Amino acid sequence: MAESSEFDLVVIGGGPAGYAAAIRAGQLGGKVACVEMERAGGTCLNWGCIPSKALLKSAEFYQSMKKADALGFTVGSVEFDFEKIIARSRSVSDQMARGIEFLFKKNKVEYVVGKGQVNVPGMVEITDGPGKGRFLKTKNILLATGAKARRLPGVEVDGERIMTSREALVMKKQPESILIIGASAIGMEFGYFLNALGTKVTMVEILPKVLPVEDDEVSRLVARSFKKAGVTMHTGTRVENLETVDGGITAELVDVDKRTSIEADAVLIAIGVEPNLDGTLSDKVKLETDRGYLTVDDRYQTSVSGIYAAGDIIGPPWLAHVATYEAIQAVNGIFDQGTPRKVTSFPGCTYCQPQVASIGKTEQTLKEDGVAYKVGKFPFTASGKAVASNSSEGFVKVLSASDTGEILGVHIVGSEATELIAEYGLAITLEATVAEIHETIHAHPTLSEALAEAAAATHNEAIHI
Amino acid sequence: MAESSEFDLVVIGGGPAGYAAAIRAGQLGGKVACVEMERAGGTCLNWGCIPSKALLKSAEFYQSMKKADALGFTVGSVEFDFEKIIARSRSVSDQMARGIEFLFKKNKVEYVVGKGQVNVPGMVEITDGPGKGRFLKTKNILLATGAKARRLPGVEVDGERIMTSREALVMKKQPESILIIGASAIGMEFGYFLNALGTKVTMVEILPKVLPVEDDEVSRLVARSFKKAGVTMHTGTRVENLETVDGGITAELVDVDKRTSIEADAVLIAIGVEPNLDGTLSDKVKLETDRGYLTVDDRYQTSVSGIYAAGDIIGPPWLAHVATYEAIQAVNGIFDQGTPRKVTSFPGCTYCQPQVASIGKTEQTLKEDGVAYKVGKFPFTASGKAVASNSSEGFVKVLSASDTGEILGVHIVGSEATELIAEYGLAITLEATVAEIHETIHAHPTLSEALAEAAAATHNEAIHI
Repeated sequence: MAESSEFDLVVIGGGPAGYAAAIRAGQLGGKVACVEMERAGGTCLNWGCIPSKALLKSAEFYQSMKKADALGFTVGSVEFDFEKIIARSRSVSDQMARGIEFLFKKNKVEYVVGKGQVNVPGMVEITDGPGKGRFLKTKNILLATGAKARRLPGVEVDGERIMTSREALVMKKQPESILIIGASAIGMEFGYFLNALGTKVTMVEILPKVLPVEDDEVSRLVARSFKKAGVTMHTGTRVENLETVDGGITAELVDVDKRTSIEADAVLIAIGVEPNLDGTLSDKVKLETDRGYLTVDDRYQTSVSGIYAAGDIIGPPWLAHVATYEAIQAVNGIFDQGTPRKVTSFPGCTYCQPQVASIGKTEQTLKEDGVAYKVGKFPFTASGKAVASNSSEGFVKVLSASDTGEILGVHIVGSEATELIAEYGLAITLEATVAEIHETIHAHPTLSEALAEAAAATHNEAIHI
Repeated sequence: MAESSEFDLVVIGGGPAGYAAAIRAGQLGGKVACVEMERAGGTCLNWGCIPSKALLKSAEFYQSMKKADALGFTVGSVEFDFEKIIARSRSVSDQMARGIEFLFKKNKVEYVVGKGQVNVPGMVEITDGPGKGRFLKTKNILLATGAKARRLPGVEVDGERIMTSREALVMKKQPESILIIGASAIGMEFGYFLNALGTKVTMVEILPKVLPVEDDEVSRLVARSFKKAGVTMHTGTRVENLETVDGGITAELVDVDKRTSIEADAVLIAIGVEPNLDGTLSDKVKLETDRGYLTVDDRYQTSVSGIYAAGDIIGPPWLAHVATYEAIQAVNGIFDQGTPRKVTSFPGCTYCQPQVASIGKTEQTLKEDGVAYKVGKFPFTASGKAVASNSSEGFVKVLSASDTGEILGVHIVGSEATELIAEYGLAITLEATVAEIHETIHAHPTLSEALAEAAAATHNEAIHI
């Protein structure tokens, strides 16, 4: 039975796409509902970006103890309570989720706890959860159901010995040893976290390098840093015969010329994501998809009029900030706030130490594409702030068009890389050149000076190298 | 007696203006000398920005111990060796100074250790130091002698009980109590450093607020934070009758309605700087000055042809990054590399905790100037990264033109403020609007998201508040 009042927009999914869309629609005065089966904030806030950053903060704290002597300190015993570290990350997620719930109220978004299903265009049925049985009549629907961790075929996730990132975020006890399958951002962040706290970490990546989407030089530096920190790293290697045994797992690691077996307390499967549409569409609603992801037009509309989609469910790059952007653009379009913009460039970040952040093309891609480019590079060892802060690992690498100087790609590895990338994000939005970055006065002493020095290095005008 | 070969450029002063000028001239193929009586790197690198950041890093480390429990850790005894903390800061300066000396060699800059005096235009005499007695014939001279700490009239700096920042950077022992006169950047940084390590800190500022050049809201937050951390803060107060006594100092603090006396182990005088030209000009060379600072034209040329000046010696804002910029521009002009640019906007930073960074106008100035502006503000308490990192004090405040949205001023207080300001530096260089900042996808979760959210808040479009 349809409810009498009709919504302007019902959003299915309460993650970075869904909650942002709902709040934005509320700002625009729309009558809007956000349907989320779990907690407001979705995977990112509850099971991804946010709690993992809390864990990493604890790991960084522990690592900083090792620098105590260099900084003039003598620290006695340092002990940690793994459960407490996990508990803090949960409380951070809880705090942020309550924040979203507050914002829903503030923006008059009806927050419907339950599983939403598009019954027919214009109607969302709540098929499970506290709201079960409700039907929400609506002018528009935005699907923002996101993605979920990919599993290994034939391997059951038991949450203790075999985990995806979701289970790993609430590990009951710290494993003494772990096998991490996949050396992309999530794998690398867990690898850093657990290794820092003393777990014996073995990482396996099927592609030839860690952080496969990053620039080769970045991947090499991070791999070297991880190895130096004690992580065993196997690239170009696949995992076979993964099995649970008493108190742990066993598996075989297979590369071109050898096959070795490994035992560990647990395994983390971090091999990417897959679309999350289970039960979201009734049999009556058929939407076009591409490899399981919803296809959308320039206005983020799916193949059915009035049904929109944004975020991970429309495919890569599966990043929270991209999802939020798309969702807001979709809502702006639905509410006639100009032409929705599509994503052109976006930063990507990995929050292990050293941190990694990048935007635009890698040097390899430019080579493959036959683009004429110049490289400007500046090492943090030449940064006074980095040396004073005792963290001078890494570099800034700027790739720009040989003819115009337009910035094509930026790759940062080192302390605060994930914050430093922001300036180059704006630079790319504004189609700025390396000369414009170089001309901008950067505060001394900061790590951000390296951004300008790398730009200057493009034309051999850096002062400090 | 003049040397046979003539220089294209002799730079007097080896600080951020002087060394950068010399290196830049070397890059351009000039025959160049840099004359510096003390160490390459000047005050900034040896007695200012760089060693102070090393000290602050130690203070931050100690402060971070207080968050141990929140992060899941139990830390036993924590002790520090004050001499070792100071020694590390010296070794950081030494490392960076050696870096500059290496860059001089690399760029074929002749590094003359000694005191340079402009004898007549076209001739620099070394009047003291290892190079004493040399005469350097040169086509051009760049004066980059900088500024030095202002003293209090009638108060002798003895280096132990009465110090400027220079003496404070090499304190032999940590004072149990200190009076800091001046709550601008240098005073605030030493105040934070010493208070963090347990010194009883009393700060006195003659103006009505701490960090007098900053936006009122920023000053208020920092003052509150310092007070909460245990610093005694007197604004609108002047110091009279400062005297040394056995084992310390006494003084009277005078505000509008009362006069109190104070005793402390030591006093730090941090009341700004004055031009440093002692002995740089012979009687035969008269240059126009304004309140003691050299007057220069659009090409950084003084009132005498062939004698240029850049950096603190040409007056405010007395910032290393501005000095470097001016010096490079001056050299570009001397070597016919286009029209030298003048400084229009520049960031200013204070590295206490919470950090402060700003660029452009304050809200008070805009009001005084009768400019129509809008405010966009975002608190770090609403930033997932800040909460996850357990450092959510502070905010980003963006002031923009009511009509065009052009960014007029940005004020950041909080964790990594000094790095975050960089994006808005570029924005102002490119005359960007708040809409362009808002449109730029910022990585999630980062503190830099607050930069975009503050821009969005200008038009009530921030998602997370």
